[in-house]
Amino acid sequence: MPENLTDLIAELALANRILSHEGVLDAFGHVSVRHPSDPGRYLLSRSRSPLLIEPGDILEYTLDSAPVRPPKVHLYAERVIHGCIYQARSDVMAVCHHHAPAVMPFCIAGKPIVPVFHLGAAMGEEAPFWDQHDEFGDTNLLVVKPEEGQSLARRLGQHAAVLMNRHGATVVGGGLKELVARSIFMCQNAEYQMRALALGAATPLHPGETKLAGVISAMPTVVTRTWEYWSLRLAASGAMPPRRSVKKSARGRGKARRRR
Amino acid sequence: MPENLTDLIAELALANRILSHEGVLDAFGHVSVRHPSDPGRYLLSRSRSPLLIEPGDILEYTLDSAPVRPPKVHLYAERVIHGCIYQARSDVMAVCHHHAPAVMPFCIAGKPIVPVFHLGAAMGEEAPFWDQHDEFGDTNLLVVKPEEGQSLARRLGQHAAVLMNRHGATVVGGGLKELVARSIFMCQNAEYQMRALALGAATPLHPGETKLAGVISAMPTVVTRTWEYWSLRLAASGAMPPRRSVKKSARGRGKARRRR
Amino acid sequence: MPENLTDLIAELALANRILSHEGVLDAFGHVSVRHPSDPGRYLLSRSRSPLLIEPGDILEYTLDSAPVRPPKVHLYAERVIHGCIYQARSDVMAVCHHHAPAVMPFCIAGKPIVPVFHLGAAMGEEAPFWDQHDEFGDTNLLVVKPEEGQSLARRLGQHAAVLMNRHGATVVGGGLKELVARSIFMCQNAEYQMRALALGAATPLHPGETKLAGVISAMPTVVTRTWEYWSLRLAASGAMPPRRSVKKSARGRGKARRRR
Amino acid sequence: MPENLTDLIAELALANRILSHEGVLDAFGHVSVRHPSDPGRYLLSRSRSPLLIEPGDILEYTLDSAPVRPPKVHLYAERVIHGCIYQARSDVMAVCHHHAPAVMPFCIAGKPIVPVFHLGAAMGEEAPFWDQHDEFGDTNLLVVKPEEGQSLARRLGQHAAVLMNRHGATVVGGGLKELVARSIFMCQNAEYQMRALALGAATPLHPGETKLAGVISAMPTVVTRTWEYWSLRLAASGAMPPRRSVKKSARGRGKARRRR
Repeated sequence: MPENLTDLIAELALANRILSHEGVLDAFGHVSVRHPSDPGRYLLSRSRSPLLIEPGDILEYTLDSAPVRPPKVHLYAERVIHGCIYQARSDVMAVCHHHAPAVMPFCIAGKPIVPVFHLGAAMGEEAPFWDQHDEFGDTNLLVVKPEEGQSLARRLGQHAAVLMNRHGATVVGGGLKELVARSIFMCQNAEYQMRALALGAATPLHPGETKLAGVISAMPTVVTRTWEYWSLRLAASGAMPPRRSVKKSARGRGKARRRR
Repeated sequence: MPENLTDLIAELALANRILSHEGVLDAFGHVSVRHPSDPGRYLLSRSRSPLLIEPGDILEYTLDSAPVRPPKVHLYAERVIHGCIYQARSDVMAVCHHHAPAVMPFCIAGKPIVPVFHLGAAMGEEAPFWDQHDEFGDTNLLVVKPEEGQSLARRLGQHAAVLMNRHGATVVGGGLKELVARSIFMCQNAEYQMRALALGAATPLHPGETKLAGVISAMPTVVTRTWEYWSLRLAASGAMPPRRSVKKSARGRGKARRRR
Repeated sequence: MPENLTDLIAELALANRILSHEGVLDAFGHVSVRHPSDPGRYLLSRSRSPLLIEPGDILEYTLDSAPVRPPKVHLYAERVIHGCIYQARSDVMAVCHHHAPAVMPFCIAGKPIVPVFHLGAAMGEEAPFWDQHDEFGDTNLLVVKPEEGQSLARRLGQHAAVLMNRHGATVVGGGLKELVARSIFMCQNAEYQMRALALGAATPLHPGETKLAGVISAMPTVVTRTWEYWSLRLAASGAMPPRRSVKKSARGRGKARRRR
Repeated sequence: MPENLTDLIAELALANRILSHEGVLDAFGHVSVRHPSDPGRYLLSRSRSPLLIEPGDILEYTLDSAPVRPPKVHLYAERVIHGCIYQARSDVMAVCHHHAPAVMPFCIAGKPIVPVFHLGAAMGEEAPFWDQHDEFGDTNLLVVKPEEGQSLARRLGQHAAVLMNRHGATVVGGGLKELVARSIFMCQNAEYQMRALALGAATPLHPGETKLAGVISAMPTVVTRTWEYWSLRLAASGAMPPRRSVKKSARGRGKARRRR
């Protein structure tokens, strides 16, 4: 991960757009990264759909999910998901919360996702389930209160991902690129598992295979290859984030789009 | 909703195209909005596929679904759906009739759609079914006669949506943006419910959750975020509606397309 | 249908591309139309994928499927499908043979497609099955010999479509636009039927409904609307057929593409 | 296949991109071709996602999968798949290893893919399964060691394809174009087989039909038609490989993309 704040913010905007373009995020979902020099803070966009996020949208938060500078914009209602996980897990450097179509059927059916192919091992063994209703009764299912975020973080434990009943999933990583790859591979895994079940059986990897295959996505050949590929696909769709400040780029972009 | 008629007509054209681009409408289906200053009238396009609708296509109708000004164009055969619902439900400000691929399997199998994730709660509890054959025997299934529209409106009752056997669905809203979000979320819900059923079970939200989560799509952060996102996706596909009068824009557009 | 040969050829090229863009045809499949002034001839492209067909590719055939002018290009191996149907059915003005992903599962499972929604009624009641193996034993499944084409035409009988086991489908129409609409609606119908079956049941329309709804796709509002919509979608993808002669347009097109 | 090395390398880059654009390859998977004048060597890209491969990325390998010239770039970890198959099968001129979404459910469920439509016969009769765990116990499932590649080649035997449990598939061909067609048709076949099974049954072709239909994809009308079609689809997406050397084209391409 870049140690320079500006570069990391640019990478975070790009990560948001890649995850959106690859079908993990849609109008909803959010990705954060821990501050590169202050582990007591994290970086997260203002409330905006991930495909549109620009570096200028990124705000700094304390681990209590309070914005460091008073914002003039809407914030994500569910930012405690990020703060509570950074508090509970010092090894976690990046967090993604999403409602990907590939995982939703599992979150609704209450059926576990298990690694069924080598890249799927990036999610580790079976992800745990968290049902907000168990502890908090009737809610609108958004994770908004600190105690809700803390409960979710407890259920995540030392896992790489947690499924949230009738809501979505939250995935963590030791870095932004690892998080992006893990989130994408876990969605592919869920899709393949679902279709294999329709054929009769979805046998998971042997536990030893899961351990060994779990680090494939950290191999230099793989990180280089996937990031280049996902970036090119995003660029080909015309959706690369601008590098300039919010206001200018917003104006610039509008023009470019209109001109097409 | 805009109180200015011109702005509302522009928003209606945009709503048609967003719903088409997001897979709710296709060659068929239509969206209307109640007149902003005369509750005894509604606005609906001439007969045209929603992705192509321009402000100049929008016509004014009485609640008997008669055009206010004698038209020189084809009208939708099924416009009584809109008029009859506006007559029966003074709270309804916008109506969408569609045959979305996500809901069709339920309309054919006669299996109810129930809210299975937080955004799906936008449709409220289980939508009722209406089978045109029950009351009218063999027809071509189009809702064309006033008595057919009235029967459908009765079955809709105080619900947010009604499923029409072997035909499609009709969704209502307190405003255009609410209607758009509800229609899209209901289709996602149907898709997830279908896939969760394939995994073994599609447990609906608890009734209290449905009530609380049902208003998420009216949260300012959500309305702002989704409308910006769906508009950007439409714009990126090159299909934003022109703002000028029908004839001029039609000509202008043709040229722009040919130039690509 | 245009009575002018040049206009009809242009419409046939457009029909090929629309059916390809809407997912009925792919690298394979072909569409023909009966000659507007000589019922003993039909028009069909040289061997080429439908998305690429230009007016200059269209050749004239006798009903024995012999080219009227000696060709310097490859011909479709399966053109007897067209000739034999035009011989057997004087009411048929257009024929489409395809392997659409939506119908293939039914052709393989041997499960009939039945009209399950109002637009699906365009295909009429249940389409018959034809298994080339029954009469001809082991073949490569291509319909190449006159006797194979005649056998297929016999099985089609007075129906609007015939399913070919482990191969595809052949659809007929009283005109090109009717054929295009029928082919597209039949694929949507197959898709919805399959998904409704996954939900538990795919109840067909009542026979009286099928008869009444079967003519919706011939309603002026519907023909105008669908043709405009499918053409716009094709145009937006940059794949409209050129109007000039083969050689010139082929050169012109290459340049335009390279310039993008 | 071109006998000229430069032309063959250009065709190999194109084959990579076609297979990616048609959904056989994604961030992963690779395609190789035997050297046109030295059967003891083969050509394969450096480690890169197939959609991005340019002629300048192609390297030459001995059949021990050692690069002929010391490379300054990352190599595919699994290149022994190619070398070991070229050693074992002198008739094989091209090899594709992939994790296509269409075959993954079969690789996970352990359910055989069988030819269910005429073009599916390009894969021959039922493809054998190879489970790396049987012989090598817990691994990360990548085929990296020569003995792993040799074991895979033994299981492939004289077949056209081999399925790899919880990993993917490897397909071989007598030429690049045959390999591309076979890989694409086998994926379509798997997709149709899966959906036919959902309808109740996926009856395979009669063995005699498989033999006769297996050569359709080598018919001149078919080779010409499919290669033109897949190339045009790739070109329309803006992803044709450049013909110039790596460095120059990489620079040129970046500019072109940015300009869009």
